[in-house]
Amino acid sequence: MTIFSQVNASKLSDTVTPGHTLPAALYISDEAFQIDMDVFFFKSWILVGFEADIPEEGDARVVDIGNASVLLVRDDDENVRAFHNSCRHRGSRLVEDRVEGISRFVCPYHQWTYDLEGNLVHAPHMGQTFDKTCHSLRPVNVRTAGGMIFICLAEDAPADIDEVLAELETRLAPFDLSNAKIAFDQTITEEGNWKLSVDNNRECYHCEGSHPELINTFVGLDIGFDPEDVSAEELRDYERHCIDAAAQVAEWEARGYVSHAIERYDGHETLLRTQRFVISGAGESHTLDGAAAVRKLLGENTDPKLGDLHIHLSNAWHHAFADHAVFSYLVPVSPTRTALRTVWLVNKDAVEGVDYDLEKLTEVWIATNQQDADLVALAQKGVQSFGYRPGPLSPFTERTVAVNQEWYLERLRAHGY
Amino acid sequence: MTIFSQVNASKLSDTVTPGHTLPAALYISDEAFQIDMDVFFFKSWILVGFEADIPEEGDARVVDIGNASVLLVRDDDENVRAFHNSCRHRGSRLVEDRVEGISRFVCPYHQWTYDLEGNLVHAPHMGQTFDKTCHSLRPVNVRTAGGMIFICLAEDAPADIDEVLAELETRLAPFDLSNAKIAFDQTITEEGNWKLSVDNNRECYHCEGSHPELINTFVGLDIGFDPEDVSAEELRDYERHCIDAAAQVAEWEARGYVSHAIERYDGHETLLRTQRFVISGAGESHTLDGAAAVRKLLGENTDPKLGDLHIHLSNAWHHAFADHAVFSYLVPVSPTRTALRTVWLVNKDAVEGVDYDLEKLTEVWIATNQQDADLVALAQKGVQSFGYRPGPLSPFTERTVAVNQEWYLERLRAHGY
Amino acid sequence: MTIFSQVNASKLSDTVTPGHTLPAALYISDEAFQIDMDVFFFKSWILVGFEADIPEEGDARVVDIGNASVLLVRDDDENVRAFHNSCRHRGSRLVEDRVEGISRFVCPYHQWTYDLEGNLVHAPHMGQTFDKTCHSLRPVNVRTAGGMIFICLAEDAPADIDEVLAELETRLAPFDLSNAKIAFDQTITEEGNWKLSVDNNRECYHCEGSHPELINTFVGLDIGFDPEDVSAEELRDYERHCIDAAAQVAEWEARGYVSHAIERYDGHETLLRTQRFVISGAGESHTLDGAAAVRKLLGENTDPKLGDLHIHLSNAWHHAFADHAVFSYLVPVSPTRTALRTVWLVNKDAVEGVDYDLEKLTEVWIATNQQDADLVALAQKGVQSFGYRPGPLSPFTERTVAVNQEWYLERLRAHGY
Repeated sequence: MTIFSQVNASKLSDTVTPGHTLPAALYISDEAFQIDMDVFFFKSWILVGFEADIPEEGDARVVDIGNASVLLVRDDDENVRAFHNSCRHRGSRLVEDRVEGISRFVCPYHQWTYDLEGNLVHAPHMGQTFDKTCHSLRPVNVRTAGGMIFICLAEDAPADIDEVLAELETRLAPFDLSNAKIAFDQTITEEGNWKLSVDNNRECYHCEGSHPELINTFVGLDIGFDPEDVSAEELRDYERHCIDAAAQVAEWEARGYVSHAIERYDGHETLLRTQRFVISGAGESHTLDGAAAVRKLLGENTDPKLGDLHIHLSNAWHHAFADHAVFSYLVPVSPTRTALRTVWLVNKDAVEGVDYDLEKLTEVWIATNQQDADLVALAQKGVQSFGYRPGPLSPFTERTVAVNQEWYLERLRAHGY
Repeated sequence: MTIFSQVNASKLSDTVTPGHTLPAALYISDEAFQIDMDVFFFKSWILVGFEADIPEEGDARVVDIGNASVLLVRDDDENVRAFHNSCRHRGSRLVEDRVEGISRFVCPYHQWTYDLEGNLVHAPHMGQTFDKTCHSLRPVNVRTAGGMIFICLAEDAPADIDEVLAELETRLAPFDLSNAKIAFDQTITEEGNWKLSVDNNRECYHCEGSHPELINTFVGLDIGFDPEDVSAEELRDYERHCIDAAAQVAEWEARGYVSHAIERYDGHETLLRTQRFVISGAGESHTLDGAAAVRKLLGENTDPKLGDLHIHLSNAWHHAFADHAVFSYLVPVSPTRTALRTVWLVNKDAVEGVDYDLEKLTEVWIATNQQDADLVALAQKGVQSFGYRPGPLSPFTERTVAVNQEWYLERLRAHGY
Repeated sequence: MTIFSQVNASKLSDTVTPGHTLPAALYISDEAFQIDMDVFFFKSWILVGFEADIPEEGDARVVDIGNASVLLVRDDDENVRAFHNSCRHRGSRLVEDRVEGISRFVCPYHQWTYDLEGNLVHAPHMGQTFDKTCHSLRPVNVRTAGGMIFICLAEDAPADIDEVLAELETRLAPFDLSNAKIAFDQTITEEGNWKLSVDNNRECYHCEGSHPELINTFVGLDIGFDPEDVSAEELRDYERHCIDAAAQVAEWEARGYVSHAIERYDGHETLLRTQRFVISGAGESHTLDGAAAVRKLLGENTDPKLGDLHIHLSNAWHHAFADHAVFSYLVPVSPTRTALRTVWLVNKDAVEGVDYDLEKLTEVWIATNQQDADLVALAQKGVQSFGYRPGPLSPFTERTVAVNQEWYLERLRAHGY
C-alpha cells in the first residue's frame, strides 16, 4: 500500500477539525498506528478476554496484543493472573495458544519450569549460585469484573480502573458472568483501522441501511434524529416511547438493576459508557423476533425482560440481556487491519439443543458483525484514498462518535502526542 | 526483499551516467517510487482508461492509481467526468469497481446521495444549517482524445495536454475510437519497476530474441542497427524498403492520414511519440500473418492497409491498424510491480465469430505481453542485485530508451528532485 | 509485525549483557538485519555451496544472498569461479537458477554473451568503438576447501581465510568431499532470526528434550553439565568415557586423522570451531543405531569408525563421518526468517538402494532439522514479544553460545557498529 502521509504525525492531534472525521494519516500511517498501540493498548487498560476462557485451575490462554504476548492463567487459588509469555532463559514463547488443567509451565526449549504463580521452580545446569527467585515470569497488571479480564501492559497503570470495575460489577452482578460459559466464540478480521471499527460501533446512523436483523430489536429514533427530518406522527410516537422507556428504567432501578446512562469520556483515563435500553419486538433479547434465545437465564434472575445493558469500552462493546450476553472486543493487527472477537455467554448450566438453539442465539450478531466488517473495509479504502478529506459528523446521529473522538485526542495529548 | 540503497535518493537525477541504465535505487527504493508516483502519476497527465469503458450515460468505472481512487463517469449529457471516489461524509469508498446505467451515486455507508455531476443531493440527519453545496464530490481533471481518457490528479495540471490531445485527435480521428468497443480486455502484473516496463517497450533490440510472433509483422532493421554489423546485401534490401516506406507515408499523408514521426520528449511536460509504420507480411495488422483480423474496419475507412499508427505516452503504448487498435497502459503497484492493461478495440458493430475470430485478433499481443513481462521480471531481478552496475545503451537500437530516460530525468529535476 | 525497537540500533553492541541472550532489537529490527547482512554476509567469508553442486565443466548454479545474486561456475579448466549474476548491458539476471554443461552464458534479454571466465565475447549493435573488455562479468571472491565453496562479496576480503581453509583441508582430506556426490539436498525455512538458528546449533542443552533420534549417537554429558546436578555414578561413568575418548583421539591423530579441538572465535575475522567426537551406539555415523548408512565409504578410507568430525563456521555446521557427511549452511531471508540448506554427501560411486538406503541415511538429521526449526520459531516468537528480557546462559551447557556471541559482538564493533 502506498501512502503519502498527509499530516506530520508528530502533531497528530492538532490536525483534527472538531466534529469531523480524522485526517487520513491517523487511519493509515505506521507512525499513528504505533502511537495508538502505545497509548491505547500498552499504557491503558484494555479488555483481552473473559473469565470463561480459563474456567478451571491450571487453565491458561495466550493473548497477543501487537508485539506483546500475554499468558492469562487461573492459578491454584482460582485467581486470574497474567504473565509475559516469554521464558526467562532464552526468551522462548512458553505457551503456543492455550493449555488446560496444568500445574506447571514447562518451557519447550530447555525445560525451565514455572508454577502457576510464575515462580521459577526448575532450571537445569544453571549452577549453584544461580538465583531462581530473580527469574520468575514477569507479571502483567490484571483485573476482572463482570466476567471480563482487563490488562494493562504499563507498569504505571491508570488508577481509575477501580471506578470502572466497580460500575461494571454493580451493573453486571445479576448476570453472574464470571460463572457463565461461552456458547459461541467468533474472531473475524476487519480490513480497517481499529478507530474505524470503533467509530462504526459508536453510531447507529448506518443501522437502517445495513443491519436488517439488528434493527428488529431497536427503537428506530433511539439512534438519534434531526427533528426537522421526521414527521409529526413519528415524533409523537417517539415521545410516547420515551415516556414508557423512562418508566421502565425507573422500575428496573427500583428493583436494583442499575440502568441510567453513564458516560466516562472527557477527563477520564479509562473510558466507559453504559446504559440499559428498552428492546423492541418481544422485548427480551437481540434475536430476530426479540424473544429470549436461552430458556435458562443468566445468574439467579427469572425475569426475561431486563432490556439491553449496553456497554462501551475503549476497545470493546457489549450487550447483556436476561438470557445471554454478546461481548465483543478488538485488537489492532496493523494500521489497516483489526481482529474482532465476539463471545456469546450463557448460563453455564444451559444445554445447547435443550435450553437454546445456537443459530437463533447467534444469528443477529453474526450477521451484524459481518455487515459492520464490510462497512469498515469500505471506509478504510475511502479514507486512505488521495482524494479523501475529513467530513462532517451529524450532530444528531453521530454525537457519540464525536465524543469518543474527543476522548481519543485528549488521551493522545495527555501522552505528549 | 532487502535492499541497500546504492545512491542517496535525494539527489537521484545527478547519479545517472548519460547513455546508461539507471542506478539501482531508482528501480527499487520506496523513496524513488514515491517520487515517481508524485511526479509522473499525480502531477502529470496519465492515461487511465477508454471511452469504451463507460459507453452509456450513468456508467462509471473506478481506477486506482497508487493511493488515489478515481471514479470515471459518463454523465447525463454523455460527457466524461472524473471524481475522487470517497464520500464527503465519513470518507467511504463510493463505488467498489464499476456500475452501469445509474442516475445517482448512493454511499453504502449512510446513504449520502450524489448526482452524476457530483452534486450532493441527499444527506439525512445533517440538520437544517448543513450546506450540501460545500460537500459535492471532489472533481479530478479529465480530458479525452481518440477514445482515451486522461486524468491529472494535481489541481495545477500541465497545460500542454492541449497540444498532445490535438495531435492524437488528428491522427486517430479516422478510427473513431470513442465509438469503438472493447473486444478483449487483459490486465497482467509485471514483476518489475514501471520504468523497466517502459524501457522494454521503447526498444525492439530484444524483439528478435523474444517475440517470434510479433516480428512477423516488423521490418527487421526498423528496430535500428549498427551499419558495421549488417551485410551489404541486408543494407541494400533495407535501403530499398526505406524508399518504398517513404513513398507509402507520402501517399497516406496525401490522403489525410497523418503519418510522419513526432517526438515530444525533451522540453515537454507531456510526452508523446507517434509515427505510422509500414507493416511487414500481409501488411495490414499485428496478426500472425499480417492480415486484418476484423472484417468490419474501424470508423468509416474501407482501406485495410493503414499501417501501424504507433503511439508512445508516458505510461502507455498503442498500435492502431485499419481493423483494430491494441492499446496498453501501465499503473505502478509498488517499486517492483506494475499492472499493465491492454484492450483490443474494434468497430462497435463488429460481431465476434462473424466479423472476427478472437484468438486471431489477440494472439500476437497476448504472447508479446507475456514475453515482455518475463523479460521485465528478469531485468528487475538483475538490477536489484548487489552486483548490478548501470550498463551502456546501444546508440543504434536503444536511442528511444535513452531519449525517454532524458525526459524522465528532466521531469524529476523540474520538480526539484 | 509491529515492533517497538527496544534499543537504539546505532549502539547495538553496547546494549548487551555478557553471558545473556541479546536485546530484542538484534533479533527483530530491520536495521540490525541490514547491519548483520553487511558485516557477516557481505564483508565476511561465507559458505554458499559445495563443489558437488557444479561437478562438471560448464555447470553453474545461482546463490542469492540478501540482494546479491552470485553465479558459481565450473570453468573449462575445472576451476570454481564466481560472478555477479547481472548482465553488464541492461543488468538482467543472467541465469535464473542453474545450468549444466554450457560453454557460454547468453543473456536472455539482448543476447549479450560471456565465456565461462566471464569475458564478454558478443554484444550486438554496440558499435565499433565499444570496448568489450570493460564489460566482463564482475567477479566475486571465491575459495574452496574440503568440497565447500566460500565467497566474500567485499573487494577487501579477510585474509585469514587461508588459515581456515588450510585447517579444513587437512581435516577433510581423507573424505575427498570435492569428489563426493549429493545423495540428498534439503532446504527448509526457519521462522527466526539467523542468530537464533546459530545459537540453537551451538548448544546441545536442548537435545535431550527435543532430539530423540540424534541423542542416540551422542554421549549425554558431552553437551556439558553442572557437576552438582549429576549423580556420583553418572560422573564416574563419564570420567571413564573421557579416558576412552582421549585414547581414541590419540589413536586417530597417530593415524593422521587430525581430531583435537580448535576454536577460532575471539580475535579472528573468520570463525572456525572443529573437533572430532566419539560417537555413541554402534559408533560409526549419525543414524538411528549409530551404524554406517553407506557401505562404500568416503574417499579411500576403509575404517568405518572415524567418529564425528564436527565443524562450526559463522553460517554453517557440519558433521563428517566415515560413510557420509551432513553439511548445513544458512542464509538469512529477513530479520525473522532464515533459509537452511542441508546436503548429505556420499562417495560419488555409492549407488542408492545398493550401497545405501536413503531413508536410513537421512532420517536423523531430517528429524533434527525440523525439531530445531520448531524451537527456533518458538524462540523468535518469544524474543520479539514486548515482555522479553535477555536471559542468562548456562555456564556449563551454553558456553559455545556465549563464545559465539562474543565473536559476533567483536565483529560488529570492528566494523564500527
